[in-house]
Amino acid sequence: MKSRREFVLGALAAPAVLTSSSAKRGYSWAEIERIIARGDVRGKLSRDDLPTPALLLDMDSFEANVAKMAGYLRERKRSFRPHAKTHKCPEIARRLVRAGAAGVCAAKLSEAEVFAHDGVGGLLVTTAVIGRHKIERAVRLASRRPDTMFCVDNAQNVRDLNDAAGAAKVRLNLAVDLWVGGRTGIVPGEPAVALAAVVGSLPHLKFAGLQAYAGHASHTVGFDNRTKVSHEAMGQAVETARLLVGKGIACPLVTGGSTGTYNIDSEIDGVTELQPGSFIFMDLDYNRIGGADGPVYRDFRNSLTVLTTVVSKPNDSLAVVDGGLKAFSTDKPYMPEAKGIQGIVYSWGGDEHGRLNIASASTAVNVGDRIEFIIPHCDPSVNLYDRIWCLRGDQVEAVWPISARGMSQ
Amino acid sequence: MKSRREFVLGALAAPAVLTSSSAKRGYSWAEIERIIARGDVRGKLSRDDLPTPALLLDMDSFEANVAKMAGYLRERKRSFRPHAKTHKCPEIARRLVRAGAAGVCAAKLSEAEVFAHDGVGGLLVTTAVIGRHKIERAVRLASRRPDTMFCVDNAQNVRDLNDAAGAAKVRLNLAVDLWVGGRTGIVPGEPAVALAAVVGSLPHLKFAGLQAYAGHASHTVGFDNRTKVSHEAMGQAVETARLLVGKGIACPLVTGGSTGTYNIDSEIDGVTELQPGSFIFMDLDYNRIGGADGPVYRDFRNSLTVLTTVVSKPNDSLAVVDGGLKAFSTDKPYMPEAKGIQGIVYSWGGDEHGRLNIASASTAVNVGDRIEFIIPHCDPSVNLYDRIWCLRGDQVEAVWPISARGMSQ
Repeated sequence: MKSRREFVLGALAAPAVLTSSSAKRGYSWAEIERIIARGDVRGKLSRDDLPTPALLLDMDSFEANVAKMAGYLRERKRSFRPHAKTHKCPEIARRLVRAGAAGVCAAKLSEAEVFAHDGVGGLLVTTAVIGRHKIERAVRLASRRPDTMFCVDNAQNVRDLNDAAGAAKVRLNLAVDLWVGGRTGIVPGEPAVALAAVVGSLPHLKFAGLQAYAGHASHTVGFDNRTKVSHEAMGQAVETARLLVGKGIACPLVTGGSTGTYNIDSEIDGVTELQPGSFIFMDLDYNRIGGADGPVYRDFRNSLTVLTTVVSKPNDSLAVVDGGLKAFSTDKPYMPEAKGIQGIVYSWGGDEHGRLNIASASTAVNVGDRIEFIIPHCDPSVNLYDRIWCLRGDQVEAVWPISARGMSQ
Repeated sequence: MKSRREFVLGALAAPAVLTSSSAKRGYSWAEIERIIARGDVRGKLSRDDLPTPALLLDMDSFEANVAKMAGYLRERKRSFRPHAKTHKCPEIARRLVRAGAAGVCAAKLSEAEVFAHDGVGGLLVTTAVIGRHKIERAVRLASRRPDTMFCVDNAQNVRDLNDAAGAAKVRLNLAVDLWVGGRTGIVPGEPAVALAAVVGSLPHLKFAGLQAYAGHASHTVGFDNRTKVSHEAMGQAVETARLLVGKGIACPLVTGGSTGTYNIDSEIDGVTELQPGSFIFMDLDYNRIGGADGPVYRDFRNSLTVLTTVVSKPNDSLAVVDGGLKAFSTDKPYMPEAKGIQGIVYSWGGDEHGRLNIASASTAVNVGDRIEFIIPHCDPSVNLYDRIWCLRGDQVEAVWPISARGMSQ
């Protein structure tokens, strides 16, 4: 039988436990919070300082994505109202507005309230505001931000909004939301025209135009197929706008589109505004739908990653990182992809962990190593975090709060 | 051509838009926040007041679940340290301790810090604390809560912890985490014994025992199969504990187990403590693994639901609710199940929406209706919300903050 001392030395020498953990420069959490609270983090924090899992934004890629989309739509004379459900971050909204956006879309009322509170104007709430409680809040938002637009697809809801607006002495801008196979909406054509007429007839409402979101088009694989599907969907919106004008109802706005269809919908006469979201970050799901110029969609760069740490290495071919179901959304059938290391295969390891098959990894992987992953689906992943760490190279340039995280009401 | 007035009346009469939206009693958001801030919500709020999507807890079911598990383990003389990654809610942790729990497990250091801050003791951090930054925080946590236990599976990490503990003049309680096919850990048997000896040999550490979590066992379908898989996994832990004792190393703790194996592992000699989590809420995934007494596991009640509102009804067979990928976790291949309404089939409708096929619904479904859904997987769904609305019948009895939401670091 070995002595206690021999066991200790044996453990220290055994390959299974002889991995070198990180002893890099480190701040305590309180120190990091103090640095963030002082406002200017530049020169103080690097990637190695960040507690993981952490949501990282590569600023060079992000800025290139914003400039490219804004320039593209400016050249084609389309309004640009990017969807903020992707980022939920007022600082990103302000940067998009500075790049030329007319404002931002918000998926829900509570999300819009956060952006309004942080000084972002030009809000379009893309889901109908239903029920007395939310209608009261919508009216209050409109009284503070009169340029806010809301979507409707139901006549009773339109009357409820009119009544509440009248009581509060405000006027609400309403877009009629069309069902073109996307999220929500009324049947295009005559039913939509009739609802627009209801809006136009009521004293405390103003008909702003049409919204049509074709979610199925956005994610159609293959550019030609996607073009066909989006033309069919957005064609119904354009046709409804023509019907409206024929009835003497002005329709200054036809808003819709996505990162998947920005270069399709912006070529359709009558689509006045695009509301793409994911282009700022990109994700594996959008990469796979194919671009106009090849089988992988690379019009925009993958700027968003999740930084993890290897916290366990049960055997030579298995490493476990500290990012799992609570660090990545799981709604797509793709796994997070390691950035900068070939041959690592990620699989879900439960709520808090990811399992890495490292049998074919291009470099050694040990406990304490930090590995960044490109995200399968950006929007619901961002919604898991309270802040985005903005990196210029390896240095943290800013820390942006995801102020509307969880605001799905 | 119809007149504008005829269009208006046509819209009001058309079945597609003639749905009655909710005009129930409603509070503004600010009013609800004021009610919550005053601390006692009883008698003031009902289910119909809550902005959706909302996370609801049925208190009768929750209390029954807590009492049943606590009583079961007390009878079998096993320690009970339920896993707080399920609820991330200090008030639930306190109730579990009042029911007899020795404390709570926390998946990560930052989660444990929240519970410690809110006065919860007996913490076991089930993932290794890796890197200088987190080690500093762990030492600080231990200095405030000396009964906290941490898990280790790597000798370098053990030495790093010892050094930091020495510098801070604290002693850390460490459990050696075993890889039994679960999340993380060192190979059971000799490698684990050797690591325990390292722990025991260092001056600022105390060897607390063994942790073994067999995630694959927890979700094995069929009680007999599950029993076999869990016996194999936990058997390795018990055998490692015997080896330790044989080497003269006391091993007072063998902790592991789950909601899926509570009535299996508590029958294994040598397993001293169970750390189930999901039993307080239950979910569709645990329902399907089968119970000791039948094909559906119903030892505990489904106490947790997500309340949604129908926000659109594009056609007679399709209703859209305001809960999608940001309202439910999507890692399981089951859809949310409507509570109290038969024949509704939910499918994902994007980040913010769910699509209901209502062609065979047992009751009419219209815009403004509120529908509750049982959750496919509770832990990562709870992590999407900031609060739990606790209901006794239809009345809100309490509102509990999910203070450790997002604390995956």
